[in-house]
Amino acid sequence: MTRIRIYDTTLRDGSQGEGVNFSLQDKLLITARLDELGIDTIEGGYPLSNPKDEAYFREVRDLDLSHARVAAFGMTRRRDVAAEDDPGMNALAGARSPVITVVGKSWDLHAREILGVSLEENLRMIADSVAFLAAAPHGPEVVYDAEHFFDGYKRNPEYALKTIQAAASSGASWIVLCDTNGGTLPEQIAEAVDAARAAVSVPLGIHPHNDGELAVANTLAAVRRGATQVQGTINGIGERCGNVDLCSVIANLALKYEGYDLLRDGSLVHLTEVSRYVYELANLNFRNGQPFVGPSAFAHKGGMHVHGIRKVASSYEHIDPGLVGNERRVLVSELSGRSNIAEKLAEHGLEHDSALMSRVLSRVQDLENEGYQFEAAEASFVLLVEKEANRYRNWFERLHYHVSVEARDGGPPITEATVKLRIGEAVEHTVSEGDGPVNALDGALRKALDPHFPRLREMNLVDYKVRVINARAGTAARVRVVIESRDRDSVWGTVGVSENVIEASWLALVDAFDHKLSKDARTEGYSAAKVVASATSSS
Amino acid sequence: MTRIRIYDTTLRDGSQGEGVNFSLQDKLLITARLDELGIDTIEGGYPLSNPKDEAYFREVRDLDLSHARVAAFGMTRRRDVAAEDDPGMNALAGARSPVITVVGKSWDLHAREILGVSLEENLRMIADSVAFLAAAPHGPEVVYDAEHFFDGYKRNPEYALKTIQAAASSGASWIVLCDTNGGTLPEQIAEAVDAARAAVSVPLGIHPHNDGELAVANTLAAVRRGATQVQGTINGIGERCGNVDLCSVIANLALKYEGYDLLRDGSLVHLTEVSRYVYELANLNFRNGQPFVGPSAFAHKGGMHVHGIRKVASSYEHIDPGLVGNERRVLVSELSGRSNIAEKLAEHGLEHDSALMSRVLSRVQDLENEGYQFEAAEASFVLLVEKEANRYRNWFERLHYHVSVEARDGGPPITEATVKLRIGEAVEHTVSEGDGPVNALDGALRKALDPHFPRLREMNLVDYKVRVINARAGTAARVRVVIESRDRDSVWGTVGVSENVIEASWLALVDAFDHKLSKDARTEGYSAAKVVASATSSS
Repeated sequence: MTRIRIYDTTLRDGSQGEGVNFSLQDKLLITARLDELGIDTIEGGYPLSNPKDEAYFREVRDLDLSHARVAAFGMTRRRDVAAEDDPGMNALAGARSPVITVVGKSWDLHAREILGVSLEENLRMIADSVAFLAAAPHGPEVVYDAEHFFDGYKRNPEYALKTIQAAASSGASWIVLCDTNGGTLPEQIAEAVDAARAAVSVPLGIHPHNDGELAVANTLAAVRRGATQVQGTINGIGERCGNVDLCSVIANLALKYEGYDLLRDGSLVHLTEVSRYVYELANLNFRNGQPFVGPSAFAHKGGMHVHGIRKVASSYEHIDPGLVGNERRVLVSELSGRSNIAEKLAEHGLEHDSALMSRVLSRVQDLENEGYQFEAAEASFVLLVEKEANRYRNWFERLHYHVSVEARDGGPPITEATVKLRIGEAVEHTVSEGDGPVNALDGALRKALDPHFPRLREMNLVDYKVRVINARAGTAARVRVVIESRDRDSVWGTVGVSENVIEASWLALVDAFDHKLSKDARTEGYSAAKVVASATSSS
Repeated sequence: MTRIRIYDTTLRDGSQGEGVNFSLQDKLLITARLDELGIDTIEGGYPLSNPKDEAYFREVRDLDLSHARVAAFGMTRRRDVAAEDDPGMNALAGARSPVITVVGKSWDLHAREILGVSLEENLRMIADSVAFLAAAPHGPEVVYDAEHFFDGYKRNPEYALKTIQAAASSGASWIVLCDTNGGTLPEQIAEAVDAARAAVSVPLGIHPHNDGELAVANTLAAVRRGATQVQGTINGIGERCGNVDLCSVIANLALKYEGYDLLRDGSLVHLTEVSRYVYELANLNFRNGQPFVGPSAFAHKGGMHVHGIRKVASSYEHIDPGLVGNERRVLVSELSGRSNIAEKLAEHGLEHDSALMSRVLSRVQDLENEGYQFEAAEASFVLLVEKEANRYRNWFERLHYHVSVEARDGGPPITEATVKLRIGEAVEHTVSEGDGPVNALDGALRKALDPHFPRLREMNLVDYKVRVINARAGTAARVRVVIESRDRDSVWGTVGVSENVIEASWLALVDAFDHKLSKDARTEGYSAAKVVASATSSS
């Protein structure tokens, strides 16, 4: 078995992605989680760049990681300065991380045009920096990242190889070949890795970006040619099109090949969980179709596929979703029938007899004719089944709502919503302004429900979609609203359909709150008094 | 040069994606746009599956496509039925499309376990179906899609090859090898394509899915081994992790290799535009980091990168973003969108000098930062240019609007809108009920405008789309409304953005009416009196 070292740079290169910004606390939490997964090296940041990264390297020492080693990242020394006098070099050594990664130029154009140094000085900068860091008193392992190695190799192979030889002969433990611009093809990766292997005897790594949508293939090509370290990020977050997604790399190496040893034994089943955890802390939405770990990665819509899946699980799935901690989902849609619904009921552990099946099927068909779609709204589907099975708990009852939007004299519109609900024995009548009508309704609903169900504060709306169903009828057409909500540990979709976008939004909002209340009641339960109070109105 | 045939299945396999649902109108609009791009084959649907697809094949004949040929898709005949007696076969032939694609089983397990037929009967089903379709009176080209070819080849290579030989010898013009489960590795693709080439002499194609995040690499591997047709979808939409993204395939083949001829000359610069158009019609959010065409694909955040980019453009970009119609995003002051805008102005016959260009560019950038997108709203873009050029005629002025939605005691919601407009010297104050707030606003606007502009009666709203722009903020996020309107001879899109869905709808509605009024004034003109009356308030 060949050990493949997984080097995570989510916290450093990943944070270059648009909209990504980790707090110090986020970085420490992610570090702990990656350690649990069995990631070998965790690049925590760039000590010179900001106080947050500096603090990270201090505080991470208290985490007591069981397996992972932390890496600090920085550039080679500046030109015409001795390494020991360079502030960047000193910040890197001063972070006292067990691994130090230093990046230098492999592409002659970059050395000359961007750094403005001679090709010889660039080689000295690499050699001096690596030697200085390797001699740091705490004895770090030095990883040399060869920036633009593949682009440099394409234009001036001899010089590109000289740069990595300079690093190797100065004490680097690893040479990592970077496809910094992300546009290299797999066959070019393979050829250049071969050349690098012939040029240096230290182990090689690969650091690909995804600009050509080939980062995973490029990683596999490098590993097959002998690279034994992979640098990437969880979920492929990163600048432009991102770094290579370690989730896909890990799953492919572990499940599609034999002979590679990675992570720790048995930790692959936590891959989906870690992916979602990182999205959560990065404040990014999941990517539904993300390979292996995405919520749609094993979602089946076509009736033919669902039919096939039931007969032979592998018929439309390339791996067992459970191997990476993901799960199969059957989408309820117009393209499918009874077999999808049976599957769905089983998935949610909903017992059913054939009479219930028939009622659910006929209700789904009626609603689909009205324009409902449950494929992105499983929570509404489950509520529907509970209603048909007489197991639905009616947490609150709508008595009244009113929404008003008014714009005068060129000013911005003012929006106000009032709602009146019966909750158990109580009647709540509340009002809220909002940025728009749905926001105002949401605000008024929360005001009414909050005293009774404080855990609703854990819940946020994360997406809101509106679709006109019969487009030909223009604004008088029926409208479908799908709302995606989340709390700390899950995401759920609900749907409402009406000719009125406000009413459709109301229906989807109510289902979203209903789902959260039912879910919490199942897992932990509200105080008995609360449940009894509202159970009186259950159907 | 080797011609690579691009076969788009966005409308069929793409619509299996979660949350994707195209209206008939969407499908026809996308077909026309793909034809303009130079896509060779457009798979429009599955004639047997539903009335919408059936209508598509009727109506698409009126589109007068300049290059693309439309394909109908279906399965091989059922077991133990003659092809001529099979309803699916007859629906396929009856669609009268120039290309017919028929999918059959290559994997012995699937034939036996899913279809429940003998391996011999499966071969007969393939041969009969292809022969029947190839003999259809309208003389279609028959494409045979070999489902699960790679999985089948891995388990029983001899049988997998027999299935494609059955199709080839029965008159199929193409054999397309499908990686239906999307889990095959590039080296396995290469080996199996070699075997298929040795087994049949008809040209080969590839149809990959992205479950291993290797679909693009798998496509390139197949093309390098001689496949000359690629089946995929725009933006890689599709079931589970999606089909291969044709945007990435096209850009890689056109820009990273020599010797492949694809699309039409000069159409590559429209790739980003087509990608976004499809997202808009599919009502899906852009994927920011999507290679080549994503809004972040050439966005630079790292200071080092920005510095480098300024010195040498290629230093952190694998291609010139303009080649695919995308643009670099670094700072607000960057000017790479200029050529797109110049092109757009020319397209609409709008004269411009460089001062106007700069004003338009800066206004577009401001609006895009607020969440506007003009890809599906060219009428709003033209109005914007007219405003910047001081050629905008302000047909009416909003003084006031008010919308109220109220639901009581379990009854349906009642919606009412009032608007107060100044039209020339007159003030109109009108009220309308509606099925929903936008319909009520539309009604009140029409009541106010009708006495002044009777030709507005020719105009209908045909589609109404709402997109949440910053989804993470939930219902308080900004909302983009795109309205599509039509009269007897044209269709136009308008856009409005606001935190309030009603205000965003109002803005898009007003642009829609403005466009109709301006267009009619240009082509035929209202009576001079009417024009003078309203010209007084032009800016």
